[in-house]
Amino acid sequence: MKSKTEYLKFNTESRLEFINITDQVEKIVRESEITEGLCLVNAMHITSSVFINDDEAGLHSDYSRWLDFLAPHQPINKYRHNDTGEDNADAHMKRQIMGREVVVAITKGKLDFGPWEQIFYGEFDGKRTKRVLVKVIGE
Amino acid sequence: MKSKTEYLKFNTESRLEFINITDQVEKIVRESEITEGLCLVNAMHITSSVFINDDEAGLHSDYSRWLDFLAPHQPINKYRHNDTGEDNADAHMKRQIMGREVVVAITKGKLDFGPWEQIFYGEFDGKRTKRVLVKVIGE
Amino acid sequence: MKSKTEYLKFNTESRLEFINITDQVEKIVRESEITEGLCLVNAMHITSSVFINDDEAGLHSDYSRWLDFLAPHQPINKYRHNDTGEDNADAHMKRQIMGREVVVAITKGKLDFGPWEQIFYGEFDGKRTKRVLVKVIGE
Repeated sequence: MKSKTEYLKFNTESRLEFINITDQVEKIVRESEITEGLCLVNAMHITSSVFINDDEAGLHSDYSRWLDFLAPHQPINKYRHNDTGEDNADAHMKRQIMGREVVVAITKGKLDFGPWEQIFYGEFDGKRTKRVLVKVIGE
Repeated sequence: MKSKTEYLKFNTESRLEFINITDQVEKIVRESEITEGLCLVNAMHITSSVFINDDEAGLHSDYSRWLDFLAPHQPINKYRHNDTGEDNADAHMKRQIMGREVVVAITKGKLDFGPWEQIFYGEFDGKRTKRVLVKVIGE
Repeated sequence: MKSKTEYLKFNTESRLEFINITDQVEKIVRESEITEGLCLVNAMHITSSVFINDDEAGLHSDYSRWLDFLAPHQPINKYRHNDTGEDNADAHMKRQIMGREVVVAITKGKLDFGPWEQIFYGEFDGKRTKRVLVKVIGE
């Protein structure tokens, strides 16, 4: 069994942001020289997500509005977590909706994707440095 | 390390549908002859899900109503994604709630399941051909 | 490829509860003597979750309130699943929000975690014995 581990870094300009990281993950898979296996991609922080969906700006704007409907940022004092001095309780909820990680099959040396699948980093409490872990195992 | 990759196809009659695919996944695990490992099952499309829950018709009806409460299909023009000519923005949200994939342990040649665990394909924008990937790795 | 499988047991005093299981998972990883691989941790029951987030009491109280807003326990007769004699339909929904499983990278013999990542068992229909599966594969 072979394995490869890499870490990606992000520091977004806005609180909420979606970044397509498919190319970066594909590059790591290629460099791993693993042809059959699994690729784990996960946020290493608890107010951000890694998820797979469509690279379409309208959808991302819908996601942003929808997540604020399900878990509003305001009022800050609505959340007990924010009594600790934080203001990001909503981001901990948004991350649970969108998920922490994806596991992708590697077949014949490539991410085994359907026609529209793209991997995104989802940031819900940005403007600071965060990391994503990519781990490939297989043969 | 051994591996096996298969693709399942679905074309549902209604927009929203849940299909129990446990038997199909078990068959692939059996054919893989892998006794200890992991089995990844994921939707290859971004308006459908693979998830594990109960095979109970009342619950599925509850899920259907609940998902429409969290992410209503109507009004279509509420979603910016639908400005592209699509009418399935809600399906992209429902899929995030229910998840893209499951990873199941294989122990002694079988899906290592609790008493009620069953694997479902969840369709939120059906009436077209969609695929599910099953990848087994291990020894 | 090596592998190790263990089962953790829980019987909570209240219906809804969050239990930090990071130490128990770390111990299993250590005993597996696997230095590079993946660790799957999943609920074996369909009204509970395994998820990764912050070990902060205020946040857990927020999660509890938020999940009851998204999927209220009452009124029981609102859910068709509860026509079967159960009263836990809401728990099946809460579990979908929080997720069934996490997959964690093992690097240099340890759970490869960001600064605040902790693994939790999330119970939504407690006061009975439930199990969590931990499966480590790698080398």
